[in-house]
Order: sequence, then C-alpha cells, then structure tokens
Amino acid sequence: MKIIGKIGKGKKEVEEKEIIKPILLKEVARKVDIAEGERAVEDILRCIYRNQPISTKKIGQYVKLPLPIIAKVRTLLERSKILDREEKGAVLTEIGNEFVEKELKLKMKHDLTCPLCNGRGIVLDEMFEEILKKHKMYAKKRPTVNTTIDQSYATPETAVYRAALMAQRGDLEGKRILFVGDDDLTSIPTALTNLCEEVVVVDIDERLLKLIDDVSKKENLNIKTIKHDLRNPLPEELRCKFDVIFTDPPYTLNGMKLFLSRGIEGLGGEGIAYLAFSHKPIDEWIEVQKTLSKMGFVIYELIPGFNLYEGSEIIGNTTFLARLIGKNLKPIIEDVEKIYTGEIKPTLRYYKCLNCGKIYEVGDKIKRIEDLTCECGGKKFSMIKRKKIKD
Amino acid sequence: MKIIGKIGKGKKEVEEKEIIKPILLKEVARKVDIAEGERAVEDILRCIYRNQPISTKKIGQYVKLPLPIIAKVRTLLERSKILDREEKGAVLTEIGNEFVEKELKLKMKHDLTCPLCNGRGIVLDEMFEEILKKHKMYAKKRPTVNTTIDQSYATPETAVYRAALMAQRGDLEGKRILFVGDDDLTSIPTALTNLCEEVVVVDIDERLLKLIDDVSKKENLNIKTIKHDLRNPLPEELRCKFDVIFTDPPYTLNGMKLFLSRGIEGLGGEGIAYLAFSHKPIDEWIEVQKTLSKMGFVIYELIPGFNLYEGSEIIGNTTFLARLIGKNLKPIIEDVEKIYTGEIKPTLRYYKCLNCGKIYEVGDKIKRIEDLTCECGGKKFSMIKRKKIKD
Repeated sequence: MKIIGKIGKGKKEVEEKEIIKPILLKEVARKVDIAEGERAVEDILRCIYRNQPISTKKIGQYVKLPLPIIAKVRTLLERSKILDREEKGAVLTEIGNEFVEKELKLKMKHDLTCPLCNGRGIVLDEMFEEILKKHKMYAKKRPTVNTTIDQSYATPETAVYRAALMAQRGDLEGKRILFVGDDDLTSIPTALTNLCEEVVVVDIDERLLKLIDDVSKKENLNIKTIKHDLRNPLPEELRCKFDVIFTDPPYTLNGMKLFLSRGIEGLGGEGIAYLAFSHKPIDEWIEVQKTLSKMGFVIYELIPGFNLYEGSEIIGNTTFLARLIGKNLKPIIEDVEKIYTGEIKPTLRYYKCLNCGKIYEVGDKIKRIEDLTCECGGKKFSMIKRKKIKD
Repeated sequence: MKIIGKIGKGKKEVEEKEIIKPILLKEVARKVDIAEGERAVEDILRCIYRNQPISTKKIGQYVKLPLPIIAKVRTLLERSKILDREEKGAVLTEIGNEFVEKELKLKMKHDLTCPLCNGRGIVLDEMFEEILKKHKMYAKKRPTVNTTIDQSYATPETAVYRAALMAQRGDLEGKRILFVGDDDLTSIPTALTNLCEEVVVVDIDERLLKLIDDVSKKENLNIKTIKHDLRNPLPEELRCKFDVIFTDPPYTLNGMKLFLSRGIEGLGGEGIAYLAFSHKPIDEWIEVQKTLSKMGFVIYELIPGFNLYEGSEIIGNTTFLARLIGKNLKPIIEDVEKIYTGEIKPTLRYYKCLNCGKIYEVGDKIKRIEDLTCECGGKKFSMIKRKKIKD
C-alpha cells in the first residue's frame, strides 16, 4: 500500500486507507483547537483548491478565521504532505489534490464571487471614487493604533464602501448619524458625501478626534467630535436624536453590548444600526444574536467579510457588516470593565528585535509593542511566540 | 401661500407649510396601515426618486414590501400631488420633487447596486449559465401553483443563483443536501452542478415530484424524491444524514418553525441551512430571529431581495436568502396546523371574469382562483377586491 503521509508529532507513518476525510480533518481540528471544527479545516482546503497559490492572509479573508489558526493548519497539513509552500503561498501537493478530490469530492476550481463588487453587492460611483481618493490621503495621517483599546484600522476602501452602503440603503440622506467610536475614520467619507443632516463622532482617543476635526475644517464637513469614554452614558445632548448609528466595537460580547447600548441611547426607541463585528465561533455568535434580539434589533442584512483591516491578523483581517433595524430598543449593559479582548483573554507576546536579537515580553509590564524601543535603539521587531495568561 | 395639494378623503386644501415630512409620511403610513411606518413611505419615495419612472412591481422589489401596500401608497401620494402616473410607472411631480429634496433631503439620483451581480455578490460562470439555459426549459413544465399551500414559484434565475451561492459557499461539493419542500425546483439546478453526494427532495405535491423525477431521469441526476406531508416527522431513513438543508417555507412563524424543524431532523445536531423567507415587519421578524437562536442557528449571511418570484404580488415578489449555521440544533414545533398564510389571515378575494364580467368570491367555498371556470366558459379573471375575514 502506498504510503502517502505522516500525521502528528510521532511521525507515525500512515497508510492511504487511513487518511480518510474524518480522520485527517478531525485530527487537525483537534490539534489546532478550532472552535469551528472540521468544517474550518475543510474551508481552508477548499479555499486553497480554488485559489492556489494563496497567502495565509488571503485564506484568512476567505474563510474568516484568525491568521494564527490558518498558519497552524497549514503547518499540520504540510506535515501530512497535503500542502506545500510556494513563494506565492499555499498549494496542494499531488497527494493533497487527490485527497480533496477523492475524499472531500471537491470539483469547483474557481470562484463565483462577483469580480466587480467583490461580493459586497454595491459599487462606487464617480462621487465615491473621488471620496476614496481623498480619504486615502487623510487615512495616511492616522496615529499608530492603540491595541490596548482594540484599535485596528479598517482600510480606506472599507470606510468608503461603508459610506456607500449606507447611502445606497437610504440611511444617509437627510439623516442624523452617530459614530459610536470611530478609529476607522468612517465619519470622514460619510460626511464627504454631503448627504447627511448631521454627523457626530464620540471616541475616547483625542488623537483621532483631532484628525477628524482637522479634515472636517479643511473640507468644511461640519463633523461634531466629542471626547467621551463610552463606559459612561452618552451625554444628555446626544440622547434620542439620531436616525442611524455606526459602530465597530471591541470584538467581545461585553464590548458589543456596551457600544450598541450607547448607540441605542443616541437613537432612542428606534432606528438603524450598522455593526461591524468579527466572525465568531457559533457558540459566541449565537450569544451576540440573542443579545441583538433582546435589545430589539433584527438583522436585516449581513455581509460576511465586508470590512478589511490593516495588519490585524488576529481577526483574520476581516469582519462582517450587519445592517440592523431596531424597534422598542433597550440598552443592555452588563459589565463595562471587561470589554477589550486583552482584558478577557490576556496574552503575553514575545518579540525579537530585528537589529540585535534581544527578546522582550509584551502584554504585562510593556503593554503594547508600539511603545517598545530596544536597548540597541532598534524599533523593528518580529513576534516569535504568544501565550495566554491563565486566570 | 401656494396651495400644493390635498390630503385625505375630505380633500381639505392644505398649505405648503403644512406638508412637512412628519405630517405627510405619518399620515400616509397611518392610512395604509403599514407596520413599517413612515420609513416605508420614505423608502418608496426614495426608490421612485432614484429610479423614476418605475413600476409598482419594481418598487416592491426595491423596498421589499407587498405590492398592494405600494399601490395604496402610490394612490395616496398621487392625491397629495406628490406622485404622477406615467405609462412606465410612478414619477415625482414638480411638487413631489421639491418635497423629497427639501423635506427628505434626497440628493442621490442613482443606484449603487452592483450591475454585474445585482447585489447578490456572486456571478454565474459558464457551467451555471448552461444550467440556467436547461433549467429555464424545465421550469416551463411546472404545474399551476396551489396557493392554498402557499406555493409561488421562484424564477428559474433565482433557483440557479441559489445553487451557485451554495456551491460558492462550499455547501454542495461532497455534501448531502435535503430540500424541505421544493416548489421552486431548486433541486434541479443543484443536482445539475454534479457537485453533491446526494440530493433528496421531500414535498407534498406529487405533480412537482413527478416533474423532478422526469428531469432527474432524463439528465441522469439521481435526485431522490419522497412524497411526504411535513406536518409529520421526517421518515426514519432521512434522519441525521444531511450536511445541508434548503427550505422556502410558508411565510408564517409556524411554517418556518415546522419546515426548519423537519430540516433539523434531517441534519441531526449540526449543519448548514438555507432559508428563503419574506421580509417581515420588525415585530414579526424579531420572533423569527429569536426562534432561530433557540433552535441553535446563527445567521451567518443574509442577502435581502435575493429571491424573485413569478406573480406572487403579496410578498412584493422578493424574499431574502439567509445562510444559517447550526450547532446543538433542536426542532421547535408548536402548531402544525396553522402554517399557511391563508389559515392565519383568511382572505376573500373577488374576481371578475374578463369575458362576461360576472364576479366570483374566492377563498371560502371556491378555495383557489386556479380552480375557477366561469359559467360562460371564461378562464381569465382579474382581481377587483380583497377582504380579510375577521375572526
């Protein structure tokens, strides 16, 4: 019998008959500890089959999984001789190809995603193309991200497509819109449409608010910015006055509850909410869905992978965008303290200076890699390891 | 002051100052008794502003409302001199244009929906174009709809786009799929992809099953059809064996519960479900959403207006398509009797014979217009009135 691969640390040689779908997929899912289970491994293989060679980052965007998970799956599948690594990314080996075609019965070698809109369902017209040009320029002026408050920047394209979607759905013309946090600067392309009655941003980060103020002044956009810690209720003058809210909250259940609840304070009893949120394992996502129902929101539209981010590998660089319609809305806030992912799953990361090789621990005494400068003066680091802090 | 219109039955003349947004929109929403309220009237006006002249049917597809509601709104807005009626459909009058631009602050005169995929996010490749050609031919052989069991046919394009979406999402290759009811014949394009491990259809209508059998034999598709009344549990041999289910159930909460629950019996503890369902007022849709959560389904993707139907005016010719992912699934069935819309909201309709003019009542003794032949031998009728039967 043909020996076609090795599985696991023991490098036990396995025979062809043994590498059948359930064994390999289950084994990999178990070892990587993916909440989504076998289906996630299958999704990764299907993505590679259709798009090879493809980078880990691109796979992440397709299958909506964090990049470290995809990297691990790739490594395990390479050990099993299913995958190979080329310069441009992952490819199936001959054995891998046989496996996915015979065991997973894959046949479709290409993608049906609309090449014009990339699956978003809308396209930019001339006005929005102009806005994109401008916004790309302004987005360059963003301060470095503060990861301790879960900042990560959506690409300028994403911000402009968000504004275009809201415009298309009729949620900008003549409307008052509140951005509950706006580290992505979505308020700028939104205000540049010149469609809204009022654009207001509340955020805790003064650096961002200053940038928005500067652009607003230069472009005569009249965006109102308010420095506010969203753990506190919305200022009185912002209550019950908006038609639409937009939020891309911290990707925790508490974070979502808090930001949407502050949004509800702004909307009053009813209105439209746009929620950008990360693709969660089913168990977590069902809690999000139940919370939305309790608040009074229905998911009227949900576009997976709508939002792309710059360098936020942990969420797989992509989140969904949901358009929610709310009636008889009520805020639900349980814990205003544990809202950031770092507070829920504290993680230590180890970075190596690319200049002298010295290794630093980040996440405890040094909070953020952005704050680190090496003794040698080096400012470039590569992450070599991450470890969750146990309670 | 310029007199710009008349509102209501009394034809009281009103002055320009009075026709401000809240009054007109609220008034129309109240008179038409739209659950969606003012927002629906605004949606209709925005749709006309962007797409005029536009037919009632097309407006229905845009705003996702039943056509009788749109027809009533049009009539009221014509009385208020906001709308006019041209050969190709509704247009704004000069006064109407001023109203939407000044009061509703509308500015965007065009649509951003992707012209290539029509907002569905996917396109048909050569294989699917071939399937569409074939399926259009087969769809012509469909029997007349049986409206007492809420049959209404999706267009052949819709059925093929459904198969393409499932293929794109990885839900066909190597998968066992169960169609829980299939009056749209979606099983045919699905099986024509030749991607699935198994395609099974359960439906109560023998005429449809025979058509599917005939096509399956001719095309060598191996679709299994089973005549089954879904008010009864799924036959033992179909339990816990499918990866994916597809259903376009009766558009009532009980109908959705029943059909999805039978689907869950077919899936076992987990799997993927595609649900085509009508756009409901928020109060009803939130009940649907809560039920999905209770069953163990998350809404992973939701595309409004994905499905188009032939001549089913009451649902506005369009429904959404949701891709649900389920874990720890459990069926929830409450009432297996009241699942069809006719059982929940019995309606009497009055039809006039186009030949001799005689009027018939349909919905009580005569159940379906399809069964009616006039005394004069005429078989063509036009509906002149509908009336809900009060309990």
